[in-house]
Amino acid sequence: MSNQQIPFNKPFLTGKETEYIEDAVMFGKISGNGDFTKKCHAFFQERYNFSKTLLTTSCTDALEMSAILVDIQPGDEVIMPAYTFVSTANAFILRGANIRFVDSREDHPGMDEDLIEELITPKTKAIVVVHYAGISCDMQKILDIADKHDLYVIEDAAQAIESYYTFPDGTRKPLGSIGHLGCFSFHETKNIIAGEGGMLVVNDEELRSRAEIIWEKGTNRSAFFRGEVDKYGWKDIGSSFLPSELTSAFLFAQLENIEKIQSRRKLIWQRYNGALSERVSELNIQSPFVPAYSTNNAHMFYLVTESYEQRTELLSYLKEKKILAVFHYLSLHKSDFFADKHDGRDLPMSDRYSDRLLRLPLYYDLTDAQQNYIIRSIKRFVEEKISDKYFLQSA
Amino acid sequence: MSNQQIPFNKPFLTGKETEYIEDAVMFGKISGNGDFTKKCHAFFQERYNFSKTLLTTSCTDALEMSAILVDIQPGDEVIMPAYTFVSTANAFILRGANIRFVDSREDHPGMDEDLIEELITPKTKAIVVVHYAGISCDMQKILDIADKHDLYVIEDAAQAIESYYTFPDGTRKPLGSIGHLGCFSFHETKNIIAGEGGMLVVNDEELRSRAEIIWEKGTNRSAFFRGEVDKYGWKDIGSSFLPSELTSAFLFAQLENIEKIQSRRKLIWQRYNGALSERVSELNIQSPFVPAYSTNNAHMFYLVTESYEQRTELLSYLKEKKILAVFHYLSLHKSDFFADKHDGRDLPMSDRYSDRLLRLPLYYDLTDAQQNYIIRSIKRFVEEKISDKYFLQSA
Repeated sequence: MSNQQIPFNKPFLTGKETEYIEDAVMFGKISGNGDFTKKCHAFFQERYNFSKTLLTTSCTDALEMSAILVDIQPGDEVIMPAYTFVSTANAFILRGANIRFVDSREDHPGMDEDLIEELITPKTKAIVVVHYAGISCDMQKILDIADKHDLYVIEDAAQAIESYYTFPDGTRKPLGSIGHLGCFSFHETKNIIAGEGGMLVVNDEELRSRAEIIWEKGTNRSAFFRGEVDKYGWKDIGSSFLPSELTSAFLFAQLENIEKIQSRRKLIWQRYNGALSERVSELNIQSPFVPAYSTNNAHMFYLVTESYEQRTELLSYLKEKKILAVFHYLSLHKSDFFADKHDGRDLPMSDRYSDRLLRLPLYYDLTDAQQNYIIRSIKRFVEEKISDKYFLQSA
Repeated sequence: MSNQQIPFNKPFLTGKETEYIEDAVMFGKISGNGDFTKKCHAFFQERYNFSKTLLTTSCTDALEMSAILVDIQPGDEVIMPAYTFVSTANAFILRGANIRFVDSREDHPGMDEDLIEELITPKTKAIVVVHYAGISCDMQKILDIADKHDLYVIEDAAQAIESYYTFPDGTRKPLGSIGHLGCFSFHETKNIIAGEGGMLVVNDEELRSRAEIIWEKGTNRSAFFRGEVDKYGWKDIGSSFLPSELTSAFLFAQLENIEKIQSRRKLIWQRYNGALSERVSELNIQSPFVPAYSTNNAHMFYLVTESYEQRTELLSYLKEKKILAVFHYLSLHKSDFFADKHDGRDLPMSDRYSDRLLRLPLYYDLTDAQQNYIIRSIKRFVEEKISDKYFLQSA
């Protein structure tokens, strides 16, 4: 091994990114909604059958568009997991929503679908599902609850590109296309990247034309450029949600290589899982669980340790070996910002993942040698701990 | 002349933009707040003595950050010109503000400072000044009003990079550094570009630390990376306001060439003004007025025609000559979105600029031959109109 640390993430580049940026620059159109944006939209429509997509500057922005589109008003309630990124909540709080946080499942960090219904009140407007690690929530259950109570379903699919959910009747749909709205991220830590970037998928036909207006700063500029209206003007609230062509040119180069990127990531994920899941269970360390209704897009390989202390030990052990493993979210209901707004319910599973989950390096350029070294290191950690235990027990 | 149209705008490229993007890509950091973002921040701090700058994905986002920072609450009132871009208003409406639109000045499209005070009520929270065409508003007058009524002043300096205001006492300050907050745009139509992009300047020391938190999705991540806190978490509302390193690398290449870009633009502006201002006045067409307290950053060369019909004729005439001149804003108080929210006041000057202002091509790569042709064409229009008039009068 070289002297260099193995990073947690390293952005993969197909080699075409800067070439496409140069193309955009040469054609003299680098602001938003140009040719590369349209190429990206067409890609998503073709590959996933998404009926309407709008690139955004971040997944945060796609979530903010969602909050505007479902018309969140001050005092409306929105249900979402506590184990998620701050933006999932902030986007709705910015519109005045009160957040009801749901606990995670015991078998994986996604929200526990069975705990949703008891939180619904007459003020509830939407359920935001987060497909953690690209693993689908039980969407049939969620759609049934939403239907029964007439709620919007918004998918925070930030990590979920190229992942699918299979309905009980056997129908399979890509994540992000199942709720009324779906939100994706192309942040550099994701499978497909654009530095910062995101996308809104508008599945509900009734929200489509307003989505386009909100995206274009509240104007009907898009309709104007399609020749549907004579002039464009201010029609609604909105923001500058659209990314530049620099971003979409970069993204398009990535999308062209999605198969290659995904097959490499899946290989790495499988090797981790095959080599580690049984071995780490000897220390009561849990490896990822993928429900039968979900595919796995190899966004993340995580472990859930037996205790907070064990995670600290393992992270330090790996750091000494120059391997950068990292923990993830802190339960949002316990944050400085939200603690006094929370309703007091314990969310033990969310806390458990906050305290015990760690993520291993997983990126396209991770070499087999590097991965073998990571696997070896974790196995040694397990061995050492077991012999410590044995030694302590026999002493 | 070639067969090609002379466009209204053409993004200028220094040649280093894609090189710097490649550097960012090579160093494996393309999400936000990396080396190029820091380089841009340092540039602005050094050149303009801005005490705290934060790049954003657009000027719209900088305005939205401002609305959050001055803590706009539903029902608060914000005063701004009606002759501006939708984002100036939307950013505050998104936080629940009621907008009181002010009319423009007769001598230039900036807001009439003498009409502000009568709109102030106990609910007024902020005055948003727009430095139209990079020409400063009378900032001493505005600061005096704001001081008297304890209001925030936010500068929409979208068009105003490298422009200055001179106070009555002779002190000179760059636009964007005078109010509590300043907002810039690097959209491809601006002097300095990054496709889509913007910047918030935080002049009020009390708003500084919160600005950083709001910028980083409501977390204290920036303080964490400076080693000021042990771990970072959710502290406040916020969004993903920061642009990727692709954007800031591009921007930095532009900033390095600001002198070159500005001197070329100023030359073009001066040539328009020297050749046209007297000639067009024969048709009662007004050319730009620059108050003595303001510099001119050559962002825009505009004309204000005698009537809506005259503008239509001139635009068509130029279009026939393959010159793309364009009009600008539609009065926001008359828009579909706002008409029923407006208090009914007439804003005749704003309407006048909506109906009669047109902008001539002005960009770095506009050649002398092209500009001569544009000037010639406008002079011919004036001659033809004058001889028409003469003919009609004598007929």
